[in-house]
Amino acid sequence: MSTSMHAAFRQAEKAKALDEVPVGAVLVCDGDIIARAHNLVMMRKDPTAHAEILVIQEGALALDTIFLSNCDLYVTLEPCAMCAQAIAFARVRRLYFGAYDPKGGGIDHGARIFSQKTCHHIPEVYGGILESKCSSILINFFKNKRTLNAPK
Amino acid sequence: MSTSMHAAFRQAEKAKALDEVPVGAVLVCDGDIIARAHNLVMMRKDPTAHAEILVIQEGALALDTIFLSNCDLYVTLEPCAMCAQAIAFARVRRLYFGAYDPKGGGIDHGARIFSQKTCHHIPEVYGGILESKCSSILINFFKNKRTLNAPK
Repeated sequence: MSTSMHAAFRQAEKAKALDEVPVGAVLVCDGDIIARAHNLVMMRKDPTAHAEILVIQEGALALDTIFLSNCDLYVTLEPCAMCAQAIAFARVRRLYFGAYDPKGGGIDHGARIFSQKTCHHIPEVYGGILESKCSSILINFFKNKRTLNAPK
Repeated sequence: MSTSMHAAFRQAEKAKALDEVPVGAVLVCDGDIIARAHNLVMMRKDPTAHAEILVIQEGALALDTIFLSNCDLYVTLEPCAMCAQAIAFARVRRLYFGAYDPKGGGIDHGARIFSQKTCHHIPEVYGGILESKCSSILINFFKNKRTLNAPK
């Protein structure tokens, strides 16, 4: 479990190197990582290019199915409502996430997608995996942004 | 307004011709349709390939920005939570939708994305545009599916 979250974290580091918000994800099927992705919103000029969306797309293509029922998704940040609903559509088996996101999260916060009566698939959810590391990379990223943008 | 929803409906018809769930969308900027898309989940083997996601991606690429603040989105069905959150991320100005979706919708039903305190952008929303037509194409699509799958 921790190995896969470390792999997701390495994806977050790749996002950071591209000056993207550092969130990374991997998809695991039968013990193997079958897809890796990180946030690419700015590079792709695509507001939907979150790590989870991209890793689901890559995983579905790799397995040639829209249902990832035997797959577990690891992501460094609590998914937003968009990604949470995509995880439900893809019928992901288990969701592991790193940092909690009180402002933008859609699992334990905000829309709480999996708690909605109309949600047709609810994965097992484990939050706070490798939390400190996953949280720190985001805090430092935004701290640097503020420093860079501060008045001289 | 009605012209744009008719254009979205023609996209839904294209989806139907491909045996995809018939939902279509267009994105309008300064009076011009700058992007057209329809549901492509099965063809692309992509559980996130809803009409709204695709039309936002196409529109953002066309305008070379992730913020579609001057754009209005027309879609034949009430967006789900995934698409509603994508619409918020893209800062779409106005959302017009056709049929209401009590089971899968995320605007007036379910997660009610734009009513969440954490939602950082709320478009103007107008539901029920060309409702009967947009609803009928979906009802007939699923009726035919059931007939085809009924025991002989």
